[in-house]
Amino acid sequence: MSSVIQNLADNESASITDLNAYMKAVGELARSSAREIARASIGSKNLALEEIAQALLSAKVKLKTANLIDLEAGRANGLSQAMLDRLALSDDRINSMSEGLRQIAALEDPIGKVTDLVSRPSGIRVGRMRVPIGVIGIIYESRPNVTADAAGLCLKSGNASVLRGGSEAFHSNKAITKCIKLGLAKAGLPAETVQIIQTTDRAAVGKMITMPESIDVIIPRGGKGLIERISKDARVPVIKHLDGICHVYIDEFANFKKAIDVSFNSKTQRYGTCNTMETLLIHQSRAKEILDELVPLYEKEGVELRGCERCVSFSSIFKNASEDDWSTEYLAPILSVRLVDSVEMAIDHIEMYSSRHTDSIITQDLSIADRFLREVDSSSVMVNTSTRFADGFEYGLGAEIGISTDKLHARGPVGLEGLTNQKYIVLGDGHIRQ
Amino acid sequence: MSSVIQNLADNESASITDLNAYMKAVGELARSSAREIARASIGSKNLALEEIAQALLSAKVKLKTANLIDLEAGRANGLSQAMLDRLALSDDRINSMSEGLRQIAALEDPIGKVTDLVSRPSGIRVGRMRVPIGVIGIIYESRPNVTADAAGLCLKSGNASVLRGGSEAFHSNKAITKCIKLGLAKAGLPAETVQIIQTTDRAAVGKMITMPESIDVIIPRGGKGLIERISKDARVPVIKHLDGICHVYIDEFANFKKAIDVSFNSKTQRYGTCNTMETLLIHQSRAKEILDELVPLYEKEGVELRGCERCVSFSSIFKNASEDDWSTEYLAPILSVRLVDSVEMAIDHIEMYSSRHTDSIITQDLSIADRFLREVDSSSVMVNTSTRFADGFEYGLGAEIGISTDKLHARGPVGLEGLTNQKYIVLGDGHIRQ
Repeated sequence: MSSVIQNLADNESASITDLNAYMKAVGELARSSAREIARASIGSKNLALEEIAQALLSAKVKLKTANLIDLEAGRANGLSQAMLDRLALSDDRINSMSEGLRQIAALEDPIGKVTDLVSRPSGIRVGRMRVPIGVIGIIYESRPNVTADAAGLCLKSGNASVLRGGSEAFHSNKAITKCIKLGLAKAGLPAETVQIIQTTDRAAVGKMITMPESIDVIIPRGGKGLIERISKDARVPVIKHLDGICHVYIDEFANFKKAIDVSFNSKTQRYGTCNTMETLLIHQSRAKEILDELVPLYEKEGVELRGCERCVSFSSIFKNASEDDWSTEYLAPILSVRLVDSVEMAIDHIEMYSSRHTDSIITQDLSIADRFLREVDSSSVMVNTSTRFADGFEYGLGAEIGISTDKLHARGPVGLEGLTNQKYIVLGDGHIRQ
Repeated sequence: MSSVIQNLADNESASITDLNAYMKAVGELARSSAREIARASIGSKNLALEEIAQALLSAKVKLKTANLIDLEAGRANGLSQAMLDRLALSDDRINSMSEGLRQIAALEDPIGKVTDLVSRPSGIRVGRMRVPIGVIGIIYESRPNVTADAAGLCLKSGNASVLRGGSEAFHSNKAITKCIKLGLAKAGLPAETVQIIQTTDRAAVGKMITMPESIDVIIPRGGKGLIERISKDARVPVIKHLDGICHVYIDEFANFKKAIDVSFNSKTQRYGTCNTMETLLIHQSRAKEILDELVPLYEKEGVELRGCERCVSFSSIFKNASEDDWSTEYLAPILSVRLVDSVEMAIDHIEMYSSRHTDSIITQDLSIADRFLREVDSSSVMVNTSTRFADGFEYGLGAEIGISTDKLHARGPVGLEGLTNQKYIVLGDGHIRQ
């Protein structure tokens, strides 16, 4: 390691001797800056985002130097090449982070919007005002760009944030956070609006998720293992999805071309994303025609096919699917395929095995489409559409901080609105209750 | 106890030998009936509510007989007269329960409503559909009418419910549940849409709040102790408020008459409700004028006054408020009063001590009113209005299942909408992602 890098690393690794006291201080700073950012003007929030975007561009050399420390440590610790790729901060990636913040600045500010203001028989007027949630805790893994994205979305929605990135990106995240604090200060906003946990001690995560007095909601971004651990131990609400076991159901009344196009695209457009189809359901009356066309297409792409008994009898290309296959998120060129006898059976299968992320039906029948839309209990339910469309940008949210499969609050892609809530406001003129 | 009552009691107390197996069965029945009630038509849900309303009226004698068992046991166990009063089912109260269900039937059905359907540049159309949450668990104390109210609201909003009432109302609740099941059956809906826990074993509550696979959200209704215990141990989201420490702030620019009327009404209209004012803040410049008028009024009503140092110097009627007074929900004719120097100081006090339930400002100044509305982070924020208005009926929700001071999902009075959520729906025509 060069002496410059070593020096930087030393400066940034102030040792934290009392974790409890440190986390308490972080929490209190977050709470007090949350009050300030909640009442900040649209102009100052957007200025901060612009200044941070600029600071990232101006700090390219510093960012890449800090990133080198992480990359060297990662190589020394035997991180896989894929992990190292995710971790690396190139000029292009820094440009994208910066551009992402400018896009967030351009989004409509949700805060303060009053809706549903109505007069009541008593004479009072009652409405709802959109307000920030308060303090958002973000816990994430390797990619350092999440630091800028998450901080930007929380800032724009009037929330303070406490960020805890992966230890493998520790120095990169700290360098990015410096740019964020610089931008906040330039816009006259408290630097503690965004805080990053200054230790790689894993116990800090345990503290973060059990501080309801300081953190209002936790958003984990990472693998299923991380999210399961956090959900299990959290004492504050968690906005999350565990996995994406997404289905496409090709109905009896599907248009042939749409069925082929959507099934192929939902699986092969990208394998590692949570909105990729993992199980294809096909009405048995259409099985031969569909499989004759689809199987060679998947084969050509190298997609391994695992089928139900009836599928296997169609083509020797199918391996036998086990019960586990129906509840597995492959994130890989593997697809499980099942033939069903009716839309009911398709919905039953989805009810049993779907992770309630995204499920799509291919049909030309209006009543069946309507039934599927109403009865499938997933955060996104689609008709004649590739599951790959399930994300905040495609839905017009402008950005997303994650996707929720929870039953309360935000469901589906979570953008700025999911980082806010509504309180009631009541306007009277000396009204008293009789 | 008469033999008739004894007989009824015996019949209704089937012993549950394996609590885990019993709760698992309840959970599975709830989950499967949730699917059916979610897709039930508006007509059949309203018919069920009508039939239940009628069944309650037809079962008056049975309901009162079951209630007698509870009342006799309550007296034997030394319940206070106030508790016994709350427990008692009179003809009037049965009529009110029945009427309440008819009112719920008359409310607009929120389910299936599609909003914000927009076309996206890709060609897909994206909107949001309002859907039930799934299975709601309600845990409550003595009043048996909660059984009918809660079941009715869950039913109308397309949710299955699992009810656990206070053990002191066990037989009354079972008798009411019989009427509910009768009504559901008459409307062709599954009787297990509403289930009541058939045991007074306290361990059943511990199970209920840790069954995320069967219950999606818990709504506790009762004292602070109950709600704290539930929140602490729950493994599913809880919609709740712990207490109502509500403030009225009389600003420098308050209209005198409105200040007096609202302060008096907020405290004295009812003492035991969560939206009753517990602390009055007064701008010091108006203190003499306001206190000269208000103190005799409160005195006449027997309201004990506890004041800050400056208050005490105004009148010997004030006792010295301790630090604890500012964070105490009296639910009694006691009021703490503090003089402040500015709206900032009032907001700071509220930020520190409010339970984020309901806080009101009295002012004629538009900018100050606007600031208070934006910056006070409570579920209801009011201008020139008595805090006693903070409830679902007054806000036009038609009914309420509780009041939430949570930061996510429903905030403030929770009516039918708070028992639902929105999923994304996506309509394409064979659209694939590029």
